Amino acid sequence: MAQIPEPAKERLLYLMRLLEKRGEARITSGEIESITGWSSHTIRKDISYLGNADEGACVPDTAAGASAETALPESEASLGNSAGYNPRSLIAAIRQALGLGGRRRLCVVGLGRLGSAYLNFQGFSHHGGTPDRVLAGELPGDLAEFELAAGFDSNVNRVEILKSPAPLYPAFKMGEVIKRFSIEIALLCVPGDAAQAAAEKLAVAGIRGIVNFAPVALKLPPEIAVRNVYIVDELRALAVKIK
Amino acid sequence: MAQIPEPAKERLLYLMRLLEKRGEARITSGEIESITGWSSHTIRKDISYLGNADEGACVPDTAAGASAETALPESEASLGNSAGYNPRSLIAAIRQALGLGGRRRLCVVGLGRLGSAYLNFQGFSHHGGTPDRVLAGELPGDLAEFELAAGFDSNVNRVEILKSPAPLYPAFKMGEVIKRFSIEIALLCVPGDAAQAAAEKLAVAGIRGIVNFAPVALKLPPEIAVRNVYIVDELRALAVKIK
Repeated sequence: MAQIPEPAKERLLYLMRLLEKRGEARITSGEIESITGWSSHTIRKDISYLGNADEGACVPDTAAGASAETALPESEASLGNSAGYNPRSLIAAIRQALGLGGRRRLCVVGLGRLGSAYLNFQGFSHHGGTPDRVLAGELPGDLAEFELAAGFDSNVNRVEILKSPAPLYPAFKMGEVIKRFSIEIALLCVPGDAAQAAAEKLAVAGIRGIVNFAPVALKLPPEIAVRNVYIVDELRALAVKIK
Repeated sequence: MAQIPEPAKERLLYLMRLLEKRGEARITSGEIESITGWSSHTIRKDISYLGNADEGACVPDTAAGASAETALPESEASLGNSAGYNPRSLIAAIRQALGLGGRRRLCVVGLGRLGSAYLNFQGFSHHGGTPDRVLAGELPGDLAEFELAAGFDSNVNRVEILKSPAPLYPAFKMGEVIKRFSIEIALLCVPGDAAQAAAEKLAVAGIRGIVNFAPVALKLPPEIAVRNVYIVDELRALAVKIK
Protein backbone atom coordinates (compact mmCIF):
# COMPACT_ATOMS: atom_id res chain seq x y z
CA MET A 1 0.00 0.00 0.00
CA ALA A 2 1.21 3.48 -0.78
CA GLN A 3 2.62 5.49 2.11
CA ILE A 4 -0.14 7.75 3.43
CA PRO A 5 1.01 11.37 4.01
CA GLU A 6 0.65 12.67 7.57
CA PRO A 7 -2.05 15.30 6.82
CA ALA A 8 -4.11 12.62 5.04
CA LYS A 9 -3.76 10.34 8.07
CA GLU A 10 -5.05 13.13 10.31
CA ARG A 11 -8.03 13.71 8.03
CA LEU A 12 -8.78 9.99 7.80
CA LEU A 13 -8.75 9.74 11.61
CA TYR A 14 -11.16 12.65 11.80
CA LEU A 15 -13.35 11.17 9.07
CA MET A 16 -13.44 7.87 10.95
CA ARG A 17 -14.74 9.67 14.01
CA LEU A 18 -17.42 11.45 11.98
CA LEU A 19 -18.55 8.13 10.54
CA GLU A 20 -18.65 6.48 13.95
CA LYS A 21 -21.11 9.11 15.21
CA ARG A 22 -23.26 8.84 12.17
CA GLY A 23 -24.66 5.34 12.24
CA GLU A 24 -25.52 3.23 9.23
CA ALA A 25 -26.63 5.78 6.63
CA ARG A 26 -24.37 6.05 3.58
CA ILE A 27 -22.45 9.29 3.29
CA THR A 28 -21.58 11.20 0.14
CA SER A 29 -18.38 13.13 -0.39
CA GLY A 30 -20.58 16.22 -0.69
CA GLU A 31 -21.83 15.64 2.85
CA ILE A 32 -18.29 15.06 4.08
CA GLU A 33 -17.29 18.30 2.39
CA SER A 34 -20.08 20.29 4.02
CA ILE A 35 -19.23 18.92 7.48
CA THR A 36 -15.44 19.17 7.30
CA GLY A 37 -14.80 21.97 4.83
CA TRP A 38 -12.30 19.78 2.94
CA SER A 39 -12.60 19.85 -0.83
CA SER A 40 -14.09 16.87 -2.66
CA HIS A 41 -10.74 16.49 -4.32
CA THR A 42 -8.97 16.12 -0.97
CA ILE A 43 -11.60 13.72 0.36
CA ARG A 44 -11.39 11.45 -2.66
CA LYS A 45 -7.63 11.54 -2.69
CA ASP A 46 -7.50 10.61 1.01
CA ILE A 47 -9.90 7.72 0.52
CA SER A 48 -7.91 6.54 -2.49
CA TYR A 49 -5.02 5.78 -0.08
CA LEU A 50 -7.15 3.07 1.50
CA GLY A 51 -6.36 0.84 -1.45
CA ASN A 52 -8.30 -1.15 -3.98
CA ALA A 53 -9.18 -4.02 -1.68
CA ASP A 54 -12.09 -2.01 -0.35
CA GLU A 55 -13.12 -0.47 -3.60
CA GLY A 56 -16.31 -2.50 -3.78
CA ALA A 57 -17.33 -1.71 -0.24
CA CYS A 58 -16.30 1.91 -0.41
CA VAL A 59 -17.64 2.75 -3.83
CA PRO A 60 -17.60 6.53 -3.94
CA ASP A 61 -20.64 8.47 -4.95
CA THR A 62 -21.06 10.45 -8.11
CA ALA A 63 -24.38 11.94 -7.11
CA ALA A 64 -23.42 14.74 -4.75
CA GLY A 65 -20.44 16.99 -4.42
CA ALA A 66 -18.42 15.09 -6.98
CA SER A 67 -18.46 17.31 -10.01
CA ALA A 68 -16.45 16.19 -13.02
CA GLU A 69 -13.68 18.70 -12.50
CA THR A 70 -12.89 17.56 -8.96
CA ALA A 71 -12.92 13.82 -9.66
CA LEU A 72 -9.43 12.37 -9.53
CA PRO A 73 -8.27 10.40 -12.55
CA GLU A 74 -6.94 7.64 -10.26
CA SER A 75 -10.31 7.01 -8.71
CA GLU A 76 -12.26 7.17 -11.92
CA ALA A 77 -12.24 3.37 -12.27
CA SER A 78 -14.08 2.99 -8.98
CA LEU A 79 -16.61 5.79 -9.50
CA GLY A 80 -19.96 4.13 -9.17
CA ASN A 81 -23.52 5.30 -9.18
CA SER A 82 -24.10 4.54 -5.52
CA ALA A 83 -25.61 6.90 -2.97
CA GLY A 84 -22.31 7.38 -1.20
CA TYR A 85 -19.85 5.49 0.97
CA ASN A 86 -20.83 2.69 3.29
CA PRO A 87 -19.70 4.04 6.69
CA ARG A 88 -19.02 0.64 8.24
CA SER A 89 -16.76 -0.46 5.38
CA LEU A 90 -15.03 2.88 5.28
CA ILE A 91 -14.31 2.76 9.03
CA ALA A 92 -12.92 -0.75 8.69
CA ALA A 93 -10.74 0.30 5.74
CA ILE A 94 -9.39 3.32 7.63
CA ARG A 95 -8.67 1.27 10.74
CA GLN A 96 -6.82 -1.30 8.66
CA ALA A 97 -4.86 1.23 6.64
CA LEU A 98 -3.79 3.16 9.74
CA GLY A 99 -2.95 0.05 11.75
CA LEU A 100 -5.51 0.77 14.49
CA GLY A 101 -5.98 -2.82 15.54
CA GLY A 102 -5.81 -4.02 19.11
CA ARG A 103 -6.34 -2.22 22.37
CA ARG A 104 -3.61 0.08 23.63
CA ARG A 105 -2.77 0.55 27.29
CA LEU A 106 -2.13 4.03 28.59
CA CYS A 107 -1.29 5.78 31.84
CA VAL A 108 -1.77 9.29 33.21
CA VAL A 109 1.35 10.92 34.67
CA GLY A 110 0.67 13.86 37.00
CA LEU A 111 -2.67 13.84 38.79
CA GLY A 112 -3.43 17.55 39.19
CA ARG A 113 -6.65 18.99 37.82
CA LEU A 114 -6.03 18.10 34.20
CA GLY A 115 -4.55 14.68 34.96
CA SER A 116 -7.42 13.69 37.20
CA ALA A 117 -9.89 14.93 34.59
CA TYR A 118 -8.36 12.47 32.13
CA LEU A 119 -8.12 9.79 34.81
CA ASN A 120 -11.90 9.94 34.99
CA PHE A 121 -12.52 10.25 31.26
CA GLN A 122 -15.53 7.99 30.75
CA GLY A 123 -14.51 6.53 27.43
CA PHE A 124 -11.39 4.63 28.49
CA SER A 125 -11.77 0.97 29.36
CA HIS A 126 -10.22 -0.55 32.46
CA HIS A 127 -8.73 -3.99 33.03
CA GLY A 128 -10.00 -5.17 29.69
CA GLY A 129 -13.56 -4.15 30.49
CA THR A 130 -15.70 -1.99 28.24
CA PRO A 131 -16.93 1.29 29.73
CA ASP A 132 -20.51 1.22 30.99
CA ARG A 133 -21.38 4.21 28.84
CA VAL A 134 -20.19 2.36 25.75
CA LEU A 135 -22.30 -0.68 26.69
CA ALA A 136 -25.28 1.61 27.29
CA GLY A 137 -24.86 3.03 23.81
CA GLU A 138 -24.12 6.54 25.09
CA LEU A 139 -20.60 6.45 23.73
CA PRO A 140 -19.33 4.86 20.52
CA GLY A 141 -17.57 1.51 20.94
CA ASP A 142 -14.35 2.83 19.45
CA LEU A 143 -13.50 4.52 22.73
CA ALA A 144 -12.91 1.13 24.29
CA GLU A 145 -9.78 0.81 22.17
CA PHE A 146 -7.76 2.61 24.85
CA GLU A 147 -7.39 1.06 28.27
CA LEU A 148 -6.38 3.22 31.20
CA ALA A 149 -4.03 0.96 33.14
CA ALA A 150 -2.45 3.29 35.72
CA GLY A 151 -2.03 6.78 37.10
CA PHE A 152 1.15 8.21 38.65
CA ASP A 153 1.95 11.18 40.84
CA SER A 154 5.01 12.18 42.83
CA ASN A 155 2.73 13.19 45.70
CA VAL A 156 2.09 9.93 47.58
CA ASN A 157 -0.70 11.53 49.56
CA ARG A 158 -2.56 12.41 46.36
CA VAL A 159 -2.13 8.88 45.06
CA GLU A 160 -3.76 7.53 48.22
CA ILE A 161 -6.64 10.00 48.39
CA LEU A 162 -7.78 10.37 44.76
CA LYS A 163 -10.71 8.32 43.58
CA SER A 164 -9.88 6.61 40.32
CA PRO A 165 -11.20 3.81 38.15
CA ALA A 166 -7.59 2.69 37.50
CA PRO A 167 -4.91 1.86 40.07
CA LEU A 168 -2.70 4.76 41.14
CA TYR A 169 0.98 4.54 42.04
CA PRO A 170 3.66 6.84 43.39
CA ALA A 171 5.90 8.14 40.61
CA PHE A 172 8.93 6.07 41.65
CA LYS A 173 7.05 2.92 40.57
CA MET A 174 6.58 4.19 37.02
CA GLY A 175 9.27 2.05 35.39
CA GLU A 176 8.15 -1.15 37.08
CA VAL A 177 4.41 -0.68 36.44
CA ILE A 178 4.80 0.43 32.80
CA LYS A 179 6.86 -2.66 32.03
CA ARG A 180 4.65 -5.04 33.99
CA PHE A 181 1.44 -3.95 32.27
CA SER A 182 3.00 -3.27 28.84
CA ILE A 183 1.75 0.32 28.90
CA GLU A 184 2.52 1.97 25.57
CA ILE A 185 1.20 5.52 25.87
CA ALA A 186 1.40 8.20 28.56
CA LEU A 187 -0.69 11.33 29.04
CA LEU A 188 1.88 13.70 30.49
CA CYS A 189 0.01 16.16 32.74
CA VAL A 190 2.80 17.34 35.05
CA PRO A 191 3.83 21.01 35.40
CA GLY A 192 6.16 22.38 32.72
CA ASP A 193 9.26 22.35 34.89
CA ALA A 194 8.81 18.64 35.66
CA ALA A 195 7.89 17.50 32.17
CA GLN A 196 11.31 16.78 30.65
CA ALA A 197 12.46 14.69 33.62
CA ALA A 198 9.19 12.74 33.69
CA ALA A 199 9.35 12.16 29.93
CA GLU A 200 12.89 10.80 30.23
CA LYS A 201 11.76 8.36 32.92
CA LEU A 202 8.90 7.28 30.65
CA ALA A 203 11.36 6.76 27.81
CA VAL A 204 13.59 4.59 29.98
CA ALA A 205 10.54 2.61 31.10
CA GLY A 206 9.81 1.76 27.47
CA ILE A 207 6.87 4.03 26.71
CA ARG A 208 6.30 4.40 22.95
CA GLY A 209 4.13 7.51 22.73
CA ILE A 210 3.44 10.59 24.85
CA VAL A 211 0.59 13.10 24.71
CA ASN A 212 2.31 16.12 26.22
CA PHE A 213 0.10 18.70 27.93
CA ALA A 214 3.03 20.65 29.39
CA PRO A 215 4.11 23.84 27.61
CA VAL A 216 7.60 22.59 26.81
CA ALA A 217 9.23 20.96 23.80
CA LEU A 218 10.32 17.53 25.00
CA LYS A 219 13.73 16.25 23.91
CA LEU A 220 13.38 12.51 23.48
CA PRO A 221 14.80 9.70 21.35
CA PRO A 222 13.23 9.83 17.86
CA GLU A 223 11.51 6.45 18.26
CA ILE A 224 9.19 7.94 20.89
CA ALA A 225 6.19 9.62 19.27
CA VAL A 226 4.98 12.85 20.86
CA ARG A 227 1.77 14.84 20.41
CA ASN A 228 1.76 18.29 22.00
CA VAL A 229 -1.56 19.57 23.32
CA TYR A 230 -1.29 22.97 24.91
CA ILE A 231 -4.20 25.26 25.43
CA VAL A 232 -2.31 28.48 24.72
CA ASP A 233 -1.23 27.09 21.33
CA GLU A 234 -4.83 26.25 20.51
CA LEU A 235 -5.94 29.72 21.56
CA ARG A 236 -3.23 31.35 19.49
CA ALA A 237 -4.14 29.24 16.47
CA LEU A 238 -7.71 30.53 16.89
CA ALA A 239 -6.54 34.10 17.42
CA VAL A 240 -4.59 33.88 14.17
CA LYS A 241 -7.73 32.78 12.33
CA ILE A 242 -10.06 35.42 13.77
CA LYS A 243 -7.76 38.44 13.60
CA MET B 1 3.02 40.32 2.80
CA ALA B 2 2.57 36.92 1.19
CA GLN B 3 -0.24 34.78 2.52
CA ILE B 4 1.25 32.34 5.04
CA PRO B 5 0.07 28.73 4.53
CA GLU B 6 -1.74 27.13 7.50
CA PRO B 7 0.92 24.50 8.27
CA ALA B 8 3.58 27.23 8.27
CA LYS B 9 1.46 29.28 10.69
CA GLU B 10 1.24 26.30 13.03
CA ARG B 11 4.99 25.79 12.92
CA LEU B 12 5.66 29.49 13.48
CA LEU B 13 3.38 29.46 16.53
CA TYR B 14 5.27 26.46 17.86
CA LEU B 15 8.62 28.08 17.10
CA MET B 16 7.49 31.23 18.93
CA ARG B 17 6.79 29.15 22.02
CA LEU B 18 10.19 27.48 21.81
CA LEU B 19 11.88 30.86 21.60
CA GLU B 20 9.89 32.23 24.53
CA LYS B 21 11.19 29.45 26.77
CA ARG B 22 14.72 29.88 25.60
CA GLY B 23 15.74 33.30 26.76
CA GLU B 24 18.16 35.63 25.05
CA ALA B 25 20.65 33.27 23.41
CA ARG B 26 20.64 33.30 19.62
CA ILE B 27 19.35 30.15 17.99
CA THR B 28 20.55 28.51 14.79
CA SER B 29 18.32 26.72 12.32
CA GLY B 30 20.33 23.59 13.13
CA GLU B 31 19.25 23.87 16.75
CA ILE B 32 15.65 24.45 15.70
CA GLU B 33 15.91 21.38 13.50
CA SER B 34 17.24 19.19 16.29
CA ILE B 35 14.47 20.31 18.68
CA THR B 36 11.53 20.19 16.28
CA GLY B 37 12.52 17.61 13.70
CA TRP B 38 11.58 20.00 10.88
CA SER B 39 14.05 20.22 8.01
CA SER B 40 16.29 23.27 7.67
CA HIS B 41 14.54 23.89 4.38
CA THR B 42 11.13 24.05 6.07
CA ILE B 43 12.42 26.26 8.88
CA ARG B 44 13.99 28.75 6.49
CA LYS B 45 10.97 28.77 4.25
CA ASP B 46 8.66 29.44 7.23
CA ILE B 47 10.83 32.26 8.49
CA SER B 48 10.98 33.74 5.00
CA TYR B 49 7.22 34.41 5.28
CA LEU B 50 7.95 36.93 8.02
CA GLY B 51 9.03 39.38 5.36
CA ASN B 52 12.07 41.47 4.61
CA ALA B 53 11.35 44.15 7.18
CA ASP B 54 12.96 41.97 9.82
CA GLU B 55 15.76 40.65 7.69
CA GLY B 56 18.36 42.60 9.59
CA ALA B 57 17.09 41.55 12.96
CA CYS B 58 16.43 37.96 11.97
CA VAL B 59 19.53 37.33 9.95
CA PRO B 60 19.65 33.57 9.56
CA ASP B 61 22.76 31.64 10.34
CA THR B 62 24.95 29.89 7.86
CA ALA B 63 27.11 28.18 10.44
CA ALA B 64 25.00 25.26 11.60
CA GLY B 65 22.42 23.11 9.90
CA ALA B 66 22.28 25.27 6.81
CA SER B 67 24.12 23.28 4.23
CA ALA B 68 24.25 24.63 0.71
CA GLU B 69 21.76 22.16 -0.70
CA THR B 70 19.04 23.06 1.80
CA ALA B 71 19.37 26.83 1.52
CA LEU B 72 16.46 28.36 -0.33
CA PRO B 73 17.25 30.60 -3.30
CA GLU B 74 14.78 33.21 -2.01
CA SER B 75 16.58 33.62 1.29
CA GLU B 76 20.05 33.61 -0.18
CA ALA B 77 20.17 37.40 -0.19
CA SER B 78 19.72 37.52 3.59
CA LEU B 79 22.13 34.70 4.43
CA GLY B 80 24.59 36.22 6.82
CA ASN B 81 27.45 34.97 8.88
CA SER B 82 25.78 35.50 12.21
CA ALA B 83 25.54 32.94 14.98
CA GLY B 84 21.83 32.41 14.43
CA TYR B 85 18.53 34.18 14.87
CA ASN B 86 17.88 36.76 17.54
CA PRO B 87 15.02 35.20 19.52
CA ARG B 88 13.46 38.48 20.62
CA SER B 89 13.30 39.86 17.08
CA LEU B 90 12.04 36.59 15.72
CA ILE B 91 9.25 36.44 18.32
CA ALA B 92 8.24 40.01 17.49
CA ALA B 93 8.25 39.25 13.76
CA ILE B 94 6.11 36.13 14.23
CA ARG B 95 3.64 37.97 16.48
CA GLN B 96 3.33 40.73 13.93
CA ALA B 97 3.00 38.44 10.93
CA LEU B 98 0.36 36.30 12.63
CA GLY B 99 -1.58 39.26 14.00
CA LEU B 100 -1.15 38.25 17.65
CA GLY B 101 -1.52 41.71 19.05
CA GLY B 102 -3.81 42.61 21.93
CA ARG B 103 -5.25 40.55 24.71
CA ARG B 104 -8.15 38.24 23.91
CA ARG B 105 -10.98 37.49 26.30
CA LEU B 106 -12.16 33.93 26.68
CA CYS B 107 -14.73 31.94 28.62
CA VAL B 108 -15.07 28.31 29.71
CA VAL B 109 -18.39 26.65 28.89
CA GLY B 110 -19.16 23.51 30.90
CA LEU B 111 -17.55 23.27 34.32
CA GLY B 112 -17.08 19.54 34.79
CA ARG B 113 -13.61 18.12 35.49
CA LEU B 114 -11.99 19.33 32.28
CA GLY B 115 -13.73 22.71 32.31
CA SER B 116 -12.78 23.42 35.90
CA ALA B 117 -9.20 22.34 35.16
CA TYR B 118 -9.03 25.05 32.50
CA LEU B 119 -10.89 27.50 34.73
CA ASN B 120 -7.97 27.23 37.11
CA PHE B 121 -5.24 27.23 34.47
CA GLN B 122 -2.58 29.41 36.03
CA GLY B 123 -1.47 31.18 32.90
CA PHE B 124 -4.65 33.08 32.05
CA SER B 125 -4.97 36.63 33.27
CA HIS B 126 -8.11 37.93 34.96
CA HIS B 127 -9.74 41.34 34.82
CA GLY B 128 -6.79 42.77 32.98
CA GLY B 129 -4.35 41.60 35.61
CA THR B 130 -1.24 39.56 34.90
CA PRO B 131 -1.04 36.14 36.53
CA ASP B 132 1.07 36.02 39.69
CA ARG B 133 3.16 33.21 38.26
CA VAL B 134 3.98 35.34 35.24
CA LEU B 135 5.01 38.24 37.48
CA ALA B 136 7.12 35.84 39.54
CA GLY B 137 8.89 34.72 36.40
CA GLU B 138 7.65 31.14 36.71
CA LEU B 139 5.62 31.41 33.53
CA PRO B 140 6.44 33.30 30.33
CA GLY B 141 4.68 36.60 29.90
CA ASP B 142 3.02 35.50 26.68
CA LEU B 143 0.44 33.59 28.68
CA ALA B 144 -1.03 36.85 29.85
CA GLU B 145 -2.30 37.45 26.33
CA PHE B 146 -5.46 35.49 27.14
CA GLU B 147 -7.84 36.77 29.79
CA LEU B 148 -10.31 34.40 31.36
CA ALA B 149 -13.43 36.55 31.71
CA ALA B 150 -16.18 34.06 32.65
CA GLY B 151 -17.25 30.47 33.18
CA PHE B 152 -20.68 29.01 32.41
CA ASP B 153 -22.55 25.88 33.44
CA SER B 154 -26.16 24.81 33.11
CA ASN B 155 -26.02 23.51 36.68
CA VAL B 156 -26.71 26.58 38.83
CA ASN B 157 -25.58 24.74 41.94
CA ARG B 158 -22.18 24.08 40.43
CA VAL B 159 -21.84 27.72 39.43
CA GLU B 160 -22.45 28.74 43.05
CA ILE B 161 -20.17 26.18 44.67
CA LEU B 162 -17.09 26.10 42.42
CA LYS B 163 -14.06 28.14 43.39
CA SER B 164 -12.85 30.15 40.44
CA PRO B 165 -10.57 33.10 39.72
CA ALA B 166 -13.12 34.37 37.16
CA PRO B 167 -16.83 35.04 37.71
CA LEU B 168 -19.16 32.12 36.99
CA TYR B 169 -22.65 32.37 35.53
CA PRO B 170 -25.55 30.04 34.81
CA ALA B 171 -25.65 29.04 31.15
CA PHE B 172 -28.75 31.11 30.35
CA LYS B 173 -26.70 34.28 30.88
CA MET B 174 -24.19 33.29 28.21
CA GLY B 175 -25.43 35.64 25.50
CA GLU B 176 -25.62 38.65 27.78
CA VAL B 177 -22.24 38.13 29.46
CA ILE B 178 -20.35 37.35 26.24
CA LYS B 179 -21.64 40.55 24.64
CA ARG B 180 -21.10 42.69 27.73
CA PHE B 181 -17.45 41.67 28.16
CA SER B 182 -16.65 41.31 24.44
CA ILE B 183 -15.58 37.70 24.93
CA GLU B 184 -14.16 36.37 21.67
CA ILE B 185 -13.18 32.77 22.38
CA ALA B 186 -14.88 29.89 24.21
CA LEU B 187 -13.39 26.66 25.56
CA LEU B 188 -16.26 24.25 24.99
CA CYS B 189 -16.03 21.56 27.69
CA VAL B 190 -19.62 20.28 27.78
CA PRO B 191 -20.54 16.61 27.14
CA GLY B 192 -20.79 15.54 23.51
CA ASP B 193 -24.57 15.48 23.39
CA ALA B 194 -24.78 19.09 24.60
CA ALA B 195 -21.99 20.49 22.44
CA GLN B 196 -23.83 21.44 19.25
CA ALA B 197 -26.60 23.29 21.11
CA ALA B 198 -24.08 25.13 23.28
CA ALA B 199 -21.97 26.03 20.23
CA GLU B 200 -25.02 27.47 18.48
CA LYS B 201 -25.78 29.64 21.52
CA LEU B 202 -22.17 30.82 21.49
CA ALA B 203 -22.47 31.65 17.79
CA VAL B 204 -25.62 33.69 18.40
CA ALA B 205 -23.88 35.48 21.27
CA GLY B 206 -21.17 36.61 18.86
CA ILE B 207 -18.28 34.34 19.83
CA ARG B 208 -15.58 34.26 17.14
CA GLY B 209 -13.62 31.13 17.97
CA ILE B 210 -14.23 27.86 19.82
CA VAL B 211 -11.79 25.30 21.19
CA ASN B 212 -14.00 22.20 21.11
CA PHE B 213 -13.16 19.42 23.57
CA ALA B 214 -16.35 17.46 22.85
CA PRO B 215 -16.07 14.46 20.53
CA VAL B 216 -18.43 15.87 17.90
CA ALA B 217 -17.99 17.78 14.65
CA LEU B 218 -19.67 21.14 15.27
CA LYS B 219 -21.78 22.59 12.48
CA LEU B 220 -21.35 26.35 12.65
CA PRO B 221 -21.30 29.37 10.34
CA PRO B 222 -17.97 29.48 8.47
CA GLU B 223 -16.93 32.77 10.10
CA ILE B 224 -16.57 31.00 13.45
CA ALA B 225 -13.15 29.38 13.81
CA VAL B 226 -13.04 25.99 15.53
CA ARG B 227 -10.14 23.94 16.90
CA ASN B 228 -10.99 20.39 17.89
CA VAL B 229 -9.07 18.91 20.81
CA TYR B 230 -10.15 15.39 21.63
CA ILE B 231 -8.04 12.99 23.59
CA VAL B 232 -9.06 9.90 21.63
CA ASP B 233 -7.95 11.59 18.40
CA GLU B 234 -4.59 12.41 19.95
CA LEU B 235 -4.22 8.83 21.16
CA ARG B 236 -5.11 7.45 17.77
CA ALA B 237 -2.66 9.78 16.06
CA LEU B 238 0.00 8.36 18.40
CA ALA B 239 -1.15 4.79 17.83
CA VAL B 240 -0.80 5.33 14.09
CA LYS B 241 2.79 6.49 14.58
CA ILE B 242 3.88 3.68 16.89
CA LYS B 243 2.20 0.75 15.15
